[in-house]
Amino acid sequence: MEQRISLVTLGVHDVARSRDFYEALGWRGQTVGNAGDETVFFQAGGLAVVLWSRGLLAGDAGVTDAGASFAGMALAHNVRSREEVDTVLTSAVDAGATITQAAADTFYGGYAGYFADPDGHLWEVAHNPGFTLGADGTLELPDFGS
Amino acid sequence: MEQRISLVTLGVHDVARSRDFYEALGWRGQTVGNAGDETVFFQAGGLAVVLWSRGLLAGDAGVTDAGASFAGMALAHNVRSREEVDTVLTSAVDAGATITQAAADTFYGGYAGYFADPDGHLWEVAHNPGFTLGADGTLELPDFGS
Repeated sequence: MEQRISLVTLGVHDVARSRDFYEALGWRGQTVGNAGDETVFFQAGGLAVVLWSRGLLAGDAGVTDAGASFAGMALAHNVRSREEVDTVLTSAVDAGATITQAAADTFYGGYAGYFADPDGHLWEVAHNPGFTLGADGTLELPDFGS
Repeated sequence: MEQRISLVTLGVHDVARSRDFYEALGWRGQTVGNAGDETVFFQAGGLAVVLWSRGLLAGDAGVTDAGASFAGMALAHNVRSREEVDTVLTSAVDAGATITQAAADTFYGGYAGYFADPDGHLWEVAHNPGFTLGADGTLELPDFGS
């Protein structure tokens, strides 16, 4: 298995509401499919973020949806300055997000906070001076020597 | 907020076990931090996949971990042929994964199945002839005209 991800699919309760949320953050997606089974695709660098019905995703994956308060997973959106962390968190709140962790200094010399999207999917917004962000937003890890 | 993801962090119960799992799949990561608080970083195209303690991740994000049977999220690993879907799913089982959905034809003319990693994180392994995969594994969505 190659060392990469192709899609991140977020199971949501209302695909149209979630598309509105991400578009309020400045993203632009494409909706495919019929009412009740719409899927929204966002090109996000070299992969795609997908919004799909939580129940249909569970069924597709062959698992039972018993509800979840914490998905055991978080996405991160790294930015180029501390100020940009605050700006993105504010725009997320304006779009309807909930701040779960206010922005604060981190142990690695950065600055970060978290918001939850309308379905509770967690996004960390972080400035980490140790991670290189390319002009296109590509993240490159340092050599930790480990 | 730019239209991209920087990190996908998987909360896991045993970081070393999870590193072993992903390395058995052919990935190579770097472990950072001390025993009990290790973090594993995998460069995965233009983003990073991170393994971290589920409890520490919940605390960092400011949420409560009440356990989850379905995270409401799935990652996908797209490949270039139906045969490669079977090969990857077999290697996942060999590494200790559980197949939650056996590979089968999909409505979009593709072929896909799902496995769960040791913590239940879902990976779809898919051949979708409508999605372009670059030589470096970069996924490019088609223009759905929507």
